[in-house]
Amino acid sequence: MISKPKKFASPIPDVAGNGLIDRRALLGRGMLFAGAAATGVGSSSTGAAAEALPVDPWSMVPGERITPYGTPSKYESKVVRTLTNPNHEPRTSNARTPHHLLEGTITPNGLHFVVARTGFPDIDPAKHLLAIHGLVKQPLVFDLDALVRYPKVTRVNFVECGGNSAPLFNKDPVQANVQAIHGLVSCSEWTGVRLSTLLEETGIDPKAKWLLAEGADGPSMNRSIPIAKALDDAMIALYQNGERIAPAQGYPMRLLVPGYEGNMNVKWLHRIKLIEEPVMAINETMQYTYRVAGPKIWQFFFPMEVKSFVTHPSPGLTLKGPGYYEIAGLAYSGNGRIAKVMVSADGGKSWAQAALDAPVLAKALTRFRLPWRWDGQPVVLQSRAWDEAGNVQPTRAEMFAERGEPKVNVPVTAFPMGHMNVITSWAIDNKGEAKHVYG
Amino acid sequence: MISKPKKFASPIPDVAGNGLIDRRALLGRGMLFAGAAATGVGSSSTGAAAEALPVDPWSMVPGERITPYGTPSKYESKVVRTLTNPNHEPRTSNARTPHHLLEGTITPNGLHFVVARTGFPDIDPAKHLLAIHGLVKQPLVFDLDALVRYPKVTRVNFVECGGNSAPLFNKDPVQANVQAIHGLVSCSEWTGVRLSTLLEETGIDPKAKWLLAEGADGPSMNRSIPIAKALDDAMIALYQNGERIAPAQGYPMRLLVPGYEGNMNVKWLHRIKLIEEPVMAINETMQYTYRVAGPKIWQFFFPMEVKSFVTHPSPGLTLKGPGYYEIAGLAYSGNGRIAKVMVSADGGKSWAQAALDAPVLAKALTRFRLPWRWDGQPVVLQSRAWDEAGNVQPTRAEMFAERGEPKVNVPVTAFPMGHMNVITSWAIDNKGEAKHVYG
Repeated sequence: MISKPKKFASPIPDVAGNGLIDRRALLGRGMLFAGAAATGVGSSSTGAAAEALPVDPWSMVPGERITPYGTPSKYESKVVRTLTNPNHEPRTSNARTPHHLLEGTITPNGLHFVVARTGFPDIDPAKHLLAIHGLVKQPLVFDLDALVRYPKVTRVNFVECGGNSAPLFNKDPVQANVQAIHGLVSCSEWTGVRLSTLLEETGIDPKAKWLLAEGADGPSMNRSIPIAKALDDAMIALYQNGERIAPAQGYPMRLLVPGYEGNMNVKWLHRIKLIEEPVMAINETMQYTYRVAGPKIWQFFFPMEVKSFVTHPSPGLTLKGPGYYEIAGLAYSGNGRIAKVMVSADGGKSWAQAALDAPVLAKALTRFRLPWRWDGQPVVLQSRAWDEAGNVQPTRAEMFAERGEPKVNVPVTAFPMGHMNVITSWAIDNKGEAKHVYG
Repeated sequence: MISKPKKFASPIPDVAGNGLIDRRALLGRGMLFAGAAATGVGSSSTGAAAEALPVDPWSMVPGERITPYGTPSKYESKVVRTLTNPNHEPRTSNARTPHHLLEGTITPNGLHFVVARTGFPDIDPAKHLLAIHGLVKQPLVFDLDALVRYPKVTRVNFVECGGNSAPLFNKDPVQANVQAIHGLVSCSEWTGVRLSTLLEETGIDPKAKWLLAEGADGPSMNRSIPIAKALDDAMIALYQNGERIAPAQGYPMRLLVPGYEGNMNVKWLHRIKLIEEPVMAINETMQYTYRVAGPKIWQFFFPMEVKSFVTHPSPGLTLKGPGYYEIAGLAYSGNGRIAKVMVSADGGKSWAQAALDAPVLAKALTRFRLPWRWDGQPVVLQSRAWDEAGNVQPTRAEMFAERGEPKVNVPVTAFPMGHMNVITSWAIDNKGEAKHVYG
């Protein structure tokens, strides 16, 4: 026999407006959620006796075949990237990560975001070469067999498109979900050879201040990158989450410049040329330059700024009545580790500090969480992140004071509109539905 | 023009026999590998001018279509699990992780090892229930919608079958590769609800000392687990590497008891019953008990012991002539963090300390690395790990002194033959081919 628990039998004290609960409630210190979730959602209540669980049909038959390479459950068929160019027309294709349907910090390779000018090149890894030349003492060419013999390193890093979150430049709040607004950032465990190791092999002419990184794709994606970054933490990445990197992520090798804007992490990398001055490639003149207030344009502005957003709840994930929930989201900074994430449920009037899942790694997605008791009334959820370098995620007012107020409703993909990292606001109505608003 | 580098122009001093190099050479402190890899392997040498890289066919055409859920390159079609029951006959299926073809520490979900009695049940997540009952104050039943509302946590943990590495019990060295010998361990980033959180909700009758965890699969896989573990770090895992856990890993939910033998991490979990004494299920009487010396049998021996093995080079990965290589492998312990990994290239006569990729996490796979200069002569590679609890990976002699010498050549899957963690030895011959030996 099962007794029905009393609702909110052991209420947990709020630490900020509209039901935000101390993050230490997550640490299992005897704080009861009072069976609120188990009893609050109908079919899974204690009304059914635990001892009399139904015998499910899948318990009565042999299981399905184990395959050489497993795939997600057929019930997860909607957990996919959204495509801006599904018919593969001759233009840029974006694929966005469904962060509202994911958890943790690692993005599965199949769901990593993509920005590709013409799709991905079909590269035979046995024939692919990487040349390092230009202002070096000894130019060298590496095939894949040669490269894997060098000392390697494994690191978790996010990659984010410089244009991620661009819908937030819109004058009015775009009615879209996390995937559409923030889906051009993903995070992987990368393994490869430090670029500094290879540059020690080639030697560096003291005149070299930049390098040109170029891909083997049709458009020859290329960018100029300061030598200092190459000698700091840049990597020739060969593996992503344990296996060879995905075709759309640069197979068989990409440049990884942790924290720098996505396009600089040149995919299908086949050439690094050391040079004195940037080459003024199209991706650093027409593309990936940014409007600021007045006549100014930002160019060569590399690190992605500190950002956070709430993934759960968010548009499309409707709350199922009043009671306890977890507010969870992602935070990251191209300048180092996340130091702190604050969460508000009253549109920024009061804030509570979120818990961060360990380990908190530099230039990697960090998962934040806060328990929350929703009373069924309208609320506005926000998150705001700080990084260890002292940067704080700006409000809209703070950002536009610097960069100029958007005067029109711009297309999502419009440039020069990058490096958007203002606070995101989700308004939850009394039906539990979330909507994008400007807080 | 490219000049051919002098071979071994800047030799790095050895720190142990047969060419082991100080791990600090990995830290980019100006130690040259002298272009040895670039020049030592033929086609990728500096003989081709870097400025005159060939224009590859894939650079001349538009790329391939970006898909909603990406898959590995077609050139990686051999990076798959090996199956012991490919025709899906009515018996246990094992699928082994190809660690010799992977890198880093995360195992892609599609390549996670599987041991399944009848394959995986085809569970409709909307109909799946988890009951917690027995010696509790208030039995509760949770559906998936209810469960995800609770506070969650993300953690990286390995899971290892109690029978992993069983081929090392063989009297003579089995001629097999890393996948066949050590392929029943994998590592994921798991996200879910702490079991302690749910047990706070149900309350615990003081008489409860154990719990029975049971799966919804046809064989109703079940195990008895001490309450102490449930209150320590056990988790109801819902997500694996960001997405919902894989069908063969327990979709839509599994028990995770970090560091404990694989079968205790009950997949397709639908029942947790708190009890006074273990139930003496088949998986803790006939299966998953272990022979020791004399008439004794180990029962209820849970944590997987400290272990390591070299993945690169290893059988099937032939060295391409003398020169510099990286020795890399995996280390882990069910008792906490890896403290140290030592590597030998002379069959255990001398040892050098390997570098460990950060972060080194408790009960998670840890990648170790050591640079190595192979002179083309036969060598025997070994690794040996220590954990933070003070445990050390045993030699064969040390293990068999305790557990009795194997007197016959036993089948790979034989029980009671679990918890095998002795040092693995790979003999490299003068052709660069690796072979399993007993060092």
